[in-house]
Amino acid sequence: MNKELLLANLREIPDFPIPGILFYDVTTLFKNAACVQEMIDALYDKYKDKGITKVVGIESRGFILGGALAARLGAGFVLARKPGKLPAETIEETYEKEYGTDSIQIHKDAINENDVILLHDDLLATGGTMAAAYRLVQKCGAPKTFINFIIELKDLNGRNAFPQEVEIETLLQF
Amino acid sequence: MNKELLLANLREIPDFPIPGILFYDVTTLFKNAACVQEMIDALYDKYKDKGITKVVGIESRGFILGGALAARLGAGFVLARKPGKLPAETIEETYEKEYGTDSIQIHKDAINENDVILLHDDLLATGGTMAAAYRLVQKCGAPKTFINFIIELKDLNGRNAFPQEVEIETLLQF
Repeated sequence: MNKELLLANLREIPDFPIPGILFYDVTTLFKNAACVQEMIDALYDKYKDKGITKVVGIESRGFILGGALAARLGAGFVLARKPGKLPAETIEETYEKEYGTDSIQIHKDAINENDVILLHDDLLATGGTMAAAYRLVQKCGAPKTFINFIIELKDLNGRNAFPQEVEIETLLQF
Repeated sequence: MNKELLLANLREIPDFPIPGILFYDVTTLFKNAACVQEMIDALYDKYKDKGITKVVGIESRGFILGGALAARLGAGFVLARKPGKLPAETIEETYEKEYGTDSIQIHKDAINENDVILLHDDLLATGGTMAAAYRLVQKCGAPKTFINFIIELKDLNGRNAFPQEVEIETLLQF
């Protein structure tokens, strides 16, 4: 993968969403056609032989490459959303945030015990949201689950939010 | 396109989000790998010779096939989001809703006067959100813009929200 191309196109925004935070803006990767191809080719190569049947994308930036990857892998796509957004019966997991808690849902019938799952989101920070999504997938009985992110913020040790045997891949690390 | 396959997998949910509304749940199309291929192949065939440089997806269900289509067409992907979600400088358009108004934003530098645009969302109802997104793209000086949706609710006459010369394609009509 041409990491230099991605790094050259990733926008850094100081003090967003709050003062003191340096935000990595992946929208400038998405708007660049060459970066999209680079990312999707790299992810396809990593997962093409894993037998993935469904890609689960985390609302809402995780829907973009998640959708692209599902189409490329010949898999289905499942939406992991905030409460109240999915129209049919859901299952839910709650996770800790800096202040209070938040929850994430998938449709109860979205995943079954024959599905090999690839969970995708844009950013691994503390890992709380993705760990909740991972628990949802486990609840559905999926026998094998892979996880990937575009960006990993290594100082936040987000990998510690997951069991050690889970395979987590990230394209860019800071 | 195998319309029967899509119709057989589309879920109808009565009284969502409010009593009296029949909601077409596209998540059951997305979770089905064959439906994803069917939709993405049909959309690729429609647009492969149009010189599309960027696909604009409407938050958040429009990100899924929008992202997939950008990757397949070799285009960039641009996020059209609700206010406060995009981290850099934005432009905004406001549109009427049943009660009050709402707004949609894109990054100011996301689209330029050389871009051929494909706007994508899952559902054409009254067309208000998409018409606002269309005006945003016009503001950026894009010389040619195409629009598509997975589903069109014909009774709501959403096509009337757009100038007559705009090419609007929908995969399923009700």
